[in-house]
Amino acid sequence: MNRLVLAAAAAVGFATALPVAAQFQKPEDAIKYRKAAMTVMANHFGRVGAMANGRVPFDAATAQANAELVATLSKLPFAGFVEGSATGDTKAKPEIWTEADKFKAAQAKMQEDVAKLNVAAKTGNLDQIKAAFGEAGKSCKSCHDNYRKE
Amino acid sequence: MNRLVLAAAAAVGFATALPVAAQFQKPEDAIKYRKAAMTVMANHFGRVGAMANGRVPFDAATAQANAELVATLSKLPFAGFVEGSATGDTKAKPEIWTEADKFKAAQAKMQEDVAKLNVAAKTGNLDQIKAAFGEAGKSCKSCHDNYRKE
Repeated sequence: MNRLVLAAAAAVGFATALPVAAQFQKPEDAIKYRKAAMTVMANHFGRVGAMANGRVPFDAATAQANAELVATLSKLPFAGFVEGSATGDTKAKPEIWTEADKFKAAQAKMQEDVAKLNVAAKTGNLDQIKAAFGEAGKSCKSCHDNYRKE
Repeated sequence: MNRLVLAAAAAVGFATALPVAAQFQKPEDAIKYRKAAMTVMANHFGRVGAMANGRVPFDAATAQANAELVATLSKLPFAGFVEGSATGDTKAKPEIWTEADKFKAAQAKMQEDVAKLNVAAKTGNLDQIKAAFGEAGKSCKSCHDNYRKE
């Protein structure tokens, strides 16, 4: 698990990482944190999606601000998947811990895709945003299908 | 309320703001979002606090990364205090809406204080971080005392 935490910490730009205990006192805190980070990320991802899907008028600055936030937020939730947090108020599947390498790869793929969405948003080109949003959405869905209970 | 939304949007760097309806389909969504944003912000604020209070060893890069995140996150929750979201799964007091100007001022004070904490963290000077953390913590507490039910 430590590798995951280090990866997440490195992604946020930490030169060093504190032990998990420093971020979460109890497994429940880790669960609450990761769910909250996902909720906030999903909201801002959805705001880009509303424009990509034509549900709201396209506004380049709004797309950029939200894509930038998603890229920042994408680095956060994974620190919350600490050992001992597979049960409780969570839909996390045990495979997150038993297939830790695969889960980490899925995490990296999503982060890469939302980084690309951020780049696309900065161009202000709606077609590029639509394409990048579609790819990032597939990453979200794939990881949820594999690692989140119904 | 629209002013609050515009202010929050402007703070995140939007050139224009979408109507609230574009961000939240239902009042419950707004409540869930604002609570989630507060949870994530509190976690990262707490990581700076753990160093400010000497509970974990000081690491300048970790303090900087977390203070930067808090400054970004501080701009998010307030978009969630939409009209019609005073009841439900929330501890929000009605004064948030009946004293909207005061609530907005408290929000601005907190954002200013965490921006100062971010500046202090970049200096790498623990004494400056301690002082700025203390001020920001007072802003959090004051707003919770006034606008959050027990």
